[in-house]
Amino acid sequence: MMEWLSDDLERDIRERRFVTQNAGRRVPGLLWLPQQAPRGLVLLGHGASGHKRMAYVLDVARRLAHEHGLAAAAIDGPVHGDRRADPDAGEMKVFEDFRAAVVERDLVEGMVEDWTHALDALQSVEALAKLPVGYWGLSMGTTFGVPFVAQEPRVQAAALGLMGRSGAVGTSGAVGDRLVRDAAALSCPIFFLVQWDDELIPRPAALELFDRIGSRSKTLHANPGRHVEVPTAELLASEAFLAQTLAAP
Amino acid sequence: MMEWLSDDLERDIRERRFVTQNAGRRVPGLLWLPQQAPRGLVLLGHGASGHKRMAYVLDVARRLAHEHGLAAAAIDGPVHGDRRADPDAGEMKVFEDFRAAVVERDLVEGMVEDWTHALDALQSVEALAKLPVGYWGLSMGTTFGVPFVAQEPRVQAAALGLMGRSGAVGTSGAVGDRLVRDAAALSCPIFFLVQWDDELIPRPAALELFDRIGSRSKTLHANPGRHVEVPTAELLASEAFLAQTLAAP
Repeated sequence: MMEWLSDDLERDIRERRFVTQNAGRRVPGLLWLPQQAPRGLVLLGHGASGHKRMAYVLDVARRLAHEHGLAAAAIDGPVHGDRRADPDAGEMKVFEDFRAAVVERDLVEGMVEDWTHALDALQSVEALAKLPVGYWGLSMGTTFGVPFVAQEPRVQAAALGLMGRSGAVGTSGAVGDRLVRDAAALSCPIFFLVQWDDELIPRPAALELFDRIGSRSKTLHANPGRHVEVPTAELLASEAFLAQTLAAP
Repeated sequence: MMEWLSDDLERDIRERRFVTQNAGRRVPGLLWLPQQAPRGLVLLGHGASGHKRMAYVLDVARRLAHEHGLAAAAIDGPVHGDRRADPDAGEMKVFEDFRAAVVERDLVEGMVEDWTHALDALQSVEALAKLPVGYWGLSMGTTFGVPFVAQEPRVQAAALGLMGRSGAVGTSGAVGDRLVRDAAALSCPIFFLVQWDDELIPRPAALELFDRIGSRSKTLHANPGRHVEVPTAELLASEAFLAQTLAAP
């Protein structure tokens, strides 16, 4: 079930809020549409402590629309954004709640289901029904993105990174095991980002995750800097990769 | 001293053979010029067992001219190409001669001097005198390129890769030690290529070399495949990187 909550036009891009219902969970989302008929749809997974409309997600969505004529959609992750009773909670509080929640219950399987359900709902929109689909998500967006894309044949390309099996950000234990296991099941073209001086994800863990990716076509871009210091040029490169891959026959 | 040997036009690109004399060594080279006044000059270092006009060097030179309006120049490495009494020797023979020579005498220092001398000579050509200078060289082109660029302030950007301190291709011992030491002295923007399944350069050695590069601006691109299987898209990316960096103010 999909409910539309708002419909705004900003900088020539239509932005529509929606909610889907899945297994008793209300999943809040956003859809961005370019002026012309979209050439593809990219699902955007935000990072831990953020939300579906955090600055870099909005930037990516708008550039995908403006520069590449692609539609984009984002949903809040579990215990994030409008899924919270206190959507304005500070980043530290959200991050701590996420770390506590992720060891308690299987957030990964739930989020895979939420993405699948959101994609079903989005494809019920006529303008989106037959478009090629991509996925874009760094950090927590990769923790959830790898298992989602690994089992979702509709996704034809993914931009991932800033993640690996390690002690940080809830990717240890069963979540980390699933991450590297599902990476081997990926088969679509993958663009993978590594921050060379990532203080959250040890470099060997990030490189191991890239190594495990089963896709025949995969590429790694690494740059100096900490976790949140991804160069804008690499965000642009990840967007161009998705546009190019989704446009291929 | 610089002597011009030929001047041909092919596919709108002027190709001029030259020889420079340096410390008793005759160093044979090639210069490629775009139709319009060049916007920069890129020095091309070929790989072991190849020569200054091997297929991928010629491809890079022509695309630099055609796509980016850049001049390019290449010289033969020691015991390679027209520096040999038998320039048509097979690749295996050349490779073996190089491996033997590189442990016997200091080929690196000689090649650094040859590049410096060739650049002096090229800059005596009026059309090239004041252009920004870049360097492009993979594998052996990096073994020589890192020490050359590290001590050559005229070089403002370099595309390197497929190399590291290891047992293969003569980069062990003193040559390998110098490679990683000089990498720390690099300061210009660097584009670095790694082949994820390189059978000649162990992955940790290639990643170590990238890690050692002292430049604040450096980027690593890694792709599946063996040493000689660099995707054409990455060659194009390395050329675009040089064009963009040399065009920056």
